[in-house]
Amino acid sequence: MSELVERSGVPRATVKFYLREGLLPAGVASGPTQATYDETHLHRLRLVRVLVQVAGLSLAQVRRVVDAVEDTDADRYEALGRALGALPPHGAPDDPGLPRARAALESLGQVFDPAYPATAQLERALAGLEEAGIPLDGDRLRSYAAHVRGLAEDEVAAVEDAAGEPSVEAAVLGTVLHEPLILALRRLAHQDVTHGRGMA
Amino acid sequence: MSELVERSGVPRATVKFYLREGLLPAGVASGPTQATYDETHLHRLRLVRVLVQVAGLSLAQVRRVVDAVEDTDADRYEALGRALGALPPHGAPDDPGLPRARAALESLGQVFDPAYPATAQLERALAGLEEAGIPLDGDRLRSYAAHVRGLAEDEVAAVEDAAGEPSVEAAVLGTVLHEPLILALRRLAHQDVTHGRGMA
Repeated sequence: MSELVERSGVPRATVKFYLREGLLPAGVASGPTQATYDETHLHRLRLVRVLVQVAGLSLAQVRRVVDAVEDTDADRYEALGRALGALPPHGAPDDPGLPRARAALESLGQVFDPAYPATAQLERALAGLEEAGIPLDGDRLRSYAAHVRGLAEDEVAAVEDAAGEPSVEAAVLGTVLHEPLILALRRLAHQDVTHGRGMA
Repeated sequence: MSELVERSGVPRATVKFYLREGLLPAGVASGPTQATYDETHLHRLRLVRVLVQVAGLSLAQVRRVVDAVEDTDADRYEALGRALGALPPHGAPDDPGLPRARAALESLGQVFDPAYPATAQLERALAGLEEAGIPLDGDRLRSYAAHVRGLAEDEVAAVEDAAGEPSVEAAVLGTVLHEPLILALRRLAHQDVTHGRGMA
């Protein structure tokens, strides 16, 4: 346990709390008051920490993710869908029929699944652009979708193992931790693209 | 004023507050108690609304953006840099030297400007990945940067007028409102890329 606390940087009381809550599997008993923890525990601890501190999930939401990670009987892609569905942003769009998201995804030839949380997220983003008086036209939508798809293909490939199976844990961490990376790189690319045209 | 309230959907009391705070320019007096508002006012009102409600800016931060939009004497790219610098996320990285961001941007051959807020945003994103035990390697960084740059080039072109000058207002709205769009499309692209491999 001491090594786990030291290597993860997570306080002992927090590690014990996660153990009690079942978010971290118990160690292997190595004596009456001792247990051994391995790399699996360290990885799980980091996952739970990122979900709580970066993604801001509640314990119930963390449990949904952890359950999907541990559910090795399930198809890996089905488990992945469940885990990603537990991640924020949550929030209901004004129109439950998701008309903007449906039209956008159909025009792109992509899967339209109203139950997938990112579909409602797209609906809210498109509605926000309309409200601001700058609705997204079809050309801009296709431009965004094409660039983002290239990125997503590389990301999916990066979380698949040699057998083509995805690591649910790696996919969840990547979804949460790569979002701020992408947004930062985008603003820096704006700066770089306009550099030399006067922008500092 | 009634038309402005109706077309923008912003309550009259809020419009008056923005006028008093100088975030919305005064209308042109058309009588002792009447003023006329035009499209400029409607656009400004939508901008202020998005900055307050979507981006969560304080009034002082909104004023920095509005000042940059109104500063027509300034180079447009310089004004744009100032306006974008007022947008969240804010927050200081652990190491003010921004060593991770510097190394990343230098390896990409991009501008490294420690005073530009997105540079600190990149530093925090890279440090977060390290802490989670999944640091970004050079290949992944180049992959992200290449896809995001293609997207950023299209976005910069979309906010430039015929003379190649950027609209600061359009760039600010796009930065705030296109972020949720990009994140939603990315998650949907993950779903679409893995569709048929079992993921719902």
